[in-house]
Amino acid sequence: KSQFSTDDHPHRRFNPLTGEWVLLSPHRSKRPWQGQTEALDLTTAPSYDSECFLCPGNRRINGEQNPKYDTTFVFQNDFAALNSEGPKAQGSDALFRFETVEGESRVLCFSPDHSLTLAQLSPEAMQAVIAAWQSQSRELGQKYLWVQVFENKGAAMGCSNPHPHGQIWAHNHLPTLVATKQQRLADYYQQHHSNLLADYVERELKEEVRIVASNDDWVALVPYWASWPFETLVLPRFDIRRMTELTAKTRETLGEIIGALTVRYDNLFRCAFPYSMGWHGAPFDGQEHPEWRLHAHFYPPLLRSASVKKFMVGYELLAEIQRDITPEQAAARLREQSPIHYKNSHY
Amino acid sequence: KSQFSTDDHPHRRFNPLTGEWVLLSPHRSKRPWQGQTEALDLTTAPSYDSECFLCPGNRRINGEQNPKYDTTFVFQNDFAALNSEGPKAQGSDALFRFETVEGESRVLCFSPDHSLTLAQLSPEAMQAVIAAWQSQSRELGQKYLWVQVFENKGAAMGCSNPHPHGQIWAHNHLPTLVATKQQRLADYYQQHHSNLLADYVERELKEEVRIVASNDDWVALVPYWASWPFETLVLPRFDIRRMTELTAKTRETLGEIIGALTVRYDNLFRCAFPYSMGWHGAPFDGQEHPEWRLHAHFYPPLLRSASVKKFMVGYELLAEIQRDITPEQAAARLREQSPIHYKNSHY
Ligand SMILES: O=P(O)(O)O[C@H]1O[C@H](CO)[C@@H](O)[C@H](O)[C@H]1O
Ligand SMILES: O=P(O)(O)O[C@H]1O[C@H](CO)[C@@H](O)[C@H](O)[C@H]1O
Repeated sequence: KSQFSTDDHPHRRFNPLTGEWVLLSPHRSKRPWQGQTEALDLTTAPSYDSECFLCPGNRRINGEQNPKYDTTFVFQNDFAALNSEGPKAQGSDALFRFETVEGESRVLCFSPDHSLTLAQLSPEAMQAVIAAWQSQSRELGQKYLWVQVFENKGAAMGCSNPHPHGQIWAHNHLPTLVATKQQRLADYYQQHHSNLLADYVERELKEEVRIVASNDDWVALVPYWASWPFETLVLPRFDIRRMTELTAKTRETLGEIIGALTVRYDNLFRCAFPYSMGWHGAPFDGQEHPEWRLHAHFYPPLLRSASVKKFMVGYELLAEIQRDITPEQAAARLREQSPIHYKNSHY
Repeated sequence: KSQFSTDDHPHRRFNPLTGEWVLLSPHRSKRPWQGQTEALDLTTAPSYDSECFLCPGNRRINGEQNPKYDTTFVFQNDFAALNSEGPKAQGSDALFRFETVEGESRVLCFSPDHSLTLAQLSPEAMQAVIAAWQSQSRELGQKYLWVQVFENKGAAMGCSNPHPHGQIWAHNHLPTLVATKQQRLADYYQQHHSNLLADYVERELKEEVRIVASNDDWVALVPYWASWPFETLVLPRFDIRRMTELTAKTRETLGEIIGALTVRYDNLFRCAFPYSMGWHGAPFDGQEHPEWRLHAHFYPPLLRSASVKKFMVGYELLAEIQRDITPEQAAARLREQSPIHYKNSHY
């Protein structure tokens, strides 16, 4: 039998942040695709769209009028998944267990310009977005245990409006995936007397093969256990536990790394690369949490081209996540992309 | 403050099979939809398609010719995610943990007729499918610990060929989601001295509100903790742990319940209702497994119509599954559908 090679032989990798395995079938990427392709929108969006609920000065569905904002703009989601009123109740039956929740959901417009995406923002406009993430986290973190900052980008990710925007959902419980991560980070800290993500980023910087971009403060990499084809993690190289602890300098270098990553994403298939992204940091419970390190996950669905995505279906929903190209191959492809956005490349 | 009502107030429900919570926002179903819609294929497929890799007598991509089969037909997947050769290796580093896998993946054509779906099979043809699930499970269960029988139906679920077919992936390890379920079923059995799914089906039969269809042997219901809008569980009313234990009678009643469920699915939005479905039963490890009960999960993505689906994105990928309509509302809508398929309703 031949030597084991991660590029040729099916194997599983373990995700220490979730405790779940991922099945890798690198030999499978040759299969033909006859299934659904994503509709490619090649029209250029206008900078202002009078029909858009998020453009400055326009009316939203509930009748409220947006201000004529010129940087970022935050409002309570008109169809919020959470609200802070309502009776409290819970049921602890082993089979029918429930509890009421309290929280809020907000929408954050990244820019007044309808036609842009995070990847195309100027450095100053990017700073405004990070500052908004930070001030929202500070404000909502005073009231709630968990503040989930995230963005769904692109129709393929269920985003119902192309205007550049993200969301912030905050509530008084740790959501399922975060509760698991909290436990795993704490276990590692206890066992190894060190921080999992701090150890991990050092190891990756030495191995190099999964790094996409880095600067003095931040690293964007395809994690060893990535689920999505071009999934990435944005990790700090310094001790920071929550978004609220960013300084002027680490905000600036963070803007750079997000730019470096999202521009490469767009360049890979020459499209506005769809993804869901979001931030995880220590809960706002007043504790120290030395086991935590602030980080962002990017989960992009595209697999082979701007129109062919990976489907997390049958086997994935019933058994285990499966992927075809290896994280090392994905990182290499992203790394080799130009750091200049393809839409600006004629300059 | 008003009385808590599951139809009006946001709450979380606990899934005892996964240990995960689901966030319910019933008041949110009123939000408008401006996002991506699924392409609706209203053309009627022909009974035979000369370009289809799965039709009887046709050649597949690797050059092999399908037999002129007239019921079901099973073959090794030409682009298998698993294979049984290859070197063995593993690495147990806390941050870079991997192991090689061995297994096979097969494709099961449900019918020679290219135009049909499970929902439209005659009772006899349905029996042939169940018999194939059973004989495949028996054969592969002799060689492997886990046999995953599943179907991806519809372009929205990444299915690359409309010819009615499912898949069977078998391997020598418990996949992530099954390992969790194994643990939870065993824990419940130890704590309560009874079987979780046996207890659950009895409780649901009494409560009635989440039942979609039932007969003497089987129940199809929307679980209390459903993630997908119209997710269902197919549960037996008798002690059966693996697919291999089905008898002529319980195969027949199972065919009935699958028909009753999938016809209602198609009738709900008058379309070939997309879903991923699959079976879970006790592992093939030679043990008794009194904590197990054979069951099927159906995970359909549609939310509001044949073209608007639920996206499991941002908040769902980073925090917790969120749903809008309640499981009780979903069950009521499915229950009220006609048991006659809309395509046959002129008879
Ligand atoms: O095997 P298929 O039908 O080509 O592929 C489909 O099902 C597989 C198993 O659920 C998934 O891994 C793929 O993402 C999906 O496109
Ligand atoms: O809030 P939106 O953008 O209307 O909705 C989108 O993001 C939500 C949060 O990730 C998801 O629950 C929805 O399924 C998705 O369509």
